[in-house]
Amino acid sequence: MTQELALGIDIGGTNTAFGIVNRRGEIIAKGKMPTTGHDTPYHYISALKQRLDEVTGGISHERFAGVGIGAPNGNFYTGEIVFAPNLPWQGVVPMARIISEALNLKAILTNDANAAAYGEMTYGAAKGMKDFILITLGTGVGSGFVANGSLIYGHDGFAGELGHVIAVRNGRKCGCGRHGCLERYASATGIVQSATEWMKERNDASILRDEHPLTAKAIHEAAEKGDKFALELMEYTGMILGQTLADAVAITSPEAIIFFGGLANAGDLLFTHVRTHMEDNLLNIYKNKVKLIQSALPDSDAAILGASALVW
Amino acid sequence: MTQELALGIDIGGTNTAFGIVNRRGEIIAKGKMPTTGHDTPYHYISALKQRLDEVTGGISHERFAGVGIGAPNGNFYTGEIVFAPNLPWQGVVPMARIISEALNLKAILTNDANAAAYGEMTYGAAKGMKDFILITLGTGVGSGFVANGSLIYGHDGFAGELGHVIAVRNGRKCGCGRHGCLERYASATGIVQSATEWMKERNDASILRDEHPLTAKAIHEAAEKGDKFALELMEYTGMILGQTLADAVAITSPEAIIFFGGLANAGDLLFTHVRTHMEDNLLNIYKNKVKLIQSALPDSDAAILGASALVW
Repeated sequence: MTQELALGIDIGGTNTAFGIVNRRGEIIAKGKMPTTGHDTPYHYISALKQRLDEVTGGISHERFAGVGIGAPNGNFYTGEIVFAPNLPWQGVVPMARIISEALNLKAILTNDANAAAYGEMTYGAAKGMKDFILITLGTGVGSGFVANGSLIYGHDGFAGELGHVIAVRNGRKCGCGRHGCLERYASATGIVQSATEWMKERNDASILRDEHPLTAKAIHEAAEKGDKFALELMEYTGMILGQTLADAVAITSPEAIIFFGGLANAGDLLFTHVRTHMEDNLLNIYKNKVKLIQSALPDSDAAILGASALVW
Repeated sequence: MTQELALGIDIGGTNTAFGIVNRRGEIIAKGKMPTTGHDTPYHYISALKQRLDEVTGGISHERFAGVGIGAPNGNFYTGEIVFAPNLPWQGVVPMARIISEALNLKAILTNDANAAAYGEMTYGAAKGMKDFILITLGTGVGSGFVANGSLIYGHDGFAGELGHVIAVRNGRKCGCGRHGCLERYASATGIVQSATEWMKERNDASILRDEHPLTAKAIHEAAEKGDKFALELMEYTGMILGQTLADAVAITSPEAIIFFGGLANAGDLLFTHVRTHMEDNLLNIYKNKVKLIQSALPDSDAAILGASALVW
């Protein structure tokens, strides 16, 4: 029997999702379980193995080419998860090795945004592209840069942190200890912070004043209803993101920038402004060339598909 | 006889330099001629061919593997020089094709900074490195980004324009039509502009006030003599460059950044500040990892070596 299947695992701060994927990108079986509530990574893997067996009836290496894992702060070269602030484990966790030993399969790990880039390249909007940027607009901002058909990992495996490029010099304090990082503005938490700051400083009427707690989704919905305050938030967020993307384009000159994650669901309400401000800030040779694309992979499956694509 | 030689041509705004290089990176013969004063690219090539014959006694394709050409605004994919403001020819010049036909040799063209990156990778400080950035600090700022052992060209061949990343939002007007580009600050012309602006605004005593015209070299020499104004110029220039490099590191995570060109000769007078401000602005995972290296290739030969390295 040929090894026609891959296991994809997406380790998130709250939940771990997994799926069995064939070479055409079809998810044959899937499941999830909480990431938290396990004393050690080893207990976590035991629970994961049990869930896998329940859902799949057992993983045979006759049929499986390997397992791909996407995780925040995952390092492709070492297979380690390194000081991930949103995961329950401290320090450095050799997750690829632990999972490989537990499942007796080849295991490849990378960070979640790089896994998403693999997913787009293998099954999604970046099929056939050799140069593109994948950006996740979620709780934070993640990115995977692809050049010459390969992920840019850098010498240490940590390349592609567009979320921590300084978008606003001396700007908002970031969790990383510095100021003005892109993800303090252009993520789901960033747009909520913009809204909260503006509400304190200004007196605009807005249906958002009744939202407790205020979420990026509520801002998106208010913008859809034509709420001026919410529309202005979209424009401001799009401006910061567009300006920063113009600089990134000057480095890797991508064919497309593909957006994924919660805030990306705002669609044209956000991307119209991203495009305008990116184009305004682009060097002439790059103007009107770079496609901005919203990921077409189904939200719930994309992370699994991306992780599984690591195997091929 | 084996094809053990390459011809390297560096097309600059004032002069064109060429050399015959063997696989060990030794320049066997070299020469130069003015780039300007020829009516068309075809007249230019005729004159170049004549100079080549004078210096080399004729180029035989039994011995030559090809010709590599470095030129401002050179495009690797198309072999064209595209709207180069500092060259005498307007519009798009299919230079690789013209030279290939004139010399009856395979011709490969890229921009001058990318050629310098090839030179460092083949013969210089980046030997054995798979991930680095080459930066030329000359009249402008050029850059070549190498990831996974390959130059990043982008989808259109125009990647690697770090000189036109916005270093100062709403900053100095740039020749490209935008404001605040890195090369308005961190090039030879940039540091002279800083000096000129400061002299108008401030009353500092400085030996630079007697320099007419003021040059980057004079600023470097004044700094060497301990002139406070010149030292402050080095610090300011190093700060802007260091801040911008911190953002570039977050994208490609290079093992080293290699500096080349006139302003790079300022050495530690400049790079001490580049390092301090880059490290201050780096995300934790990148701190104390990135080497800053001054190119060790001889100034006069590096461009020829870089161009010739395209052939191998």
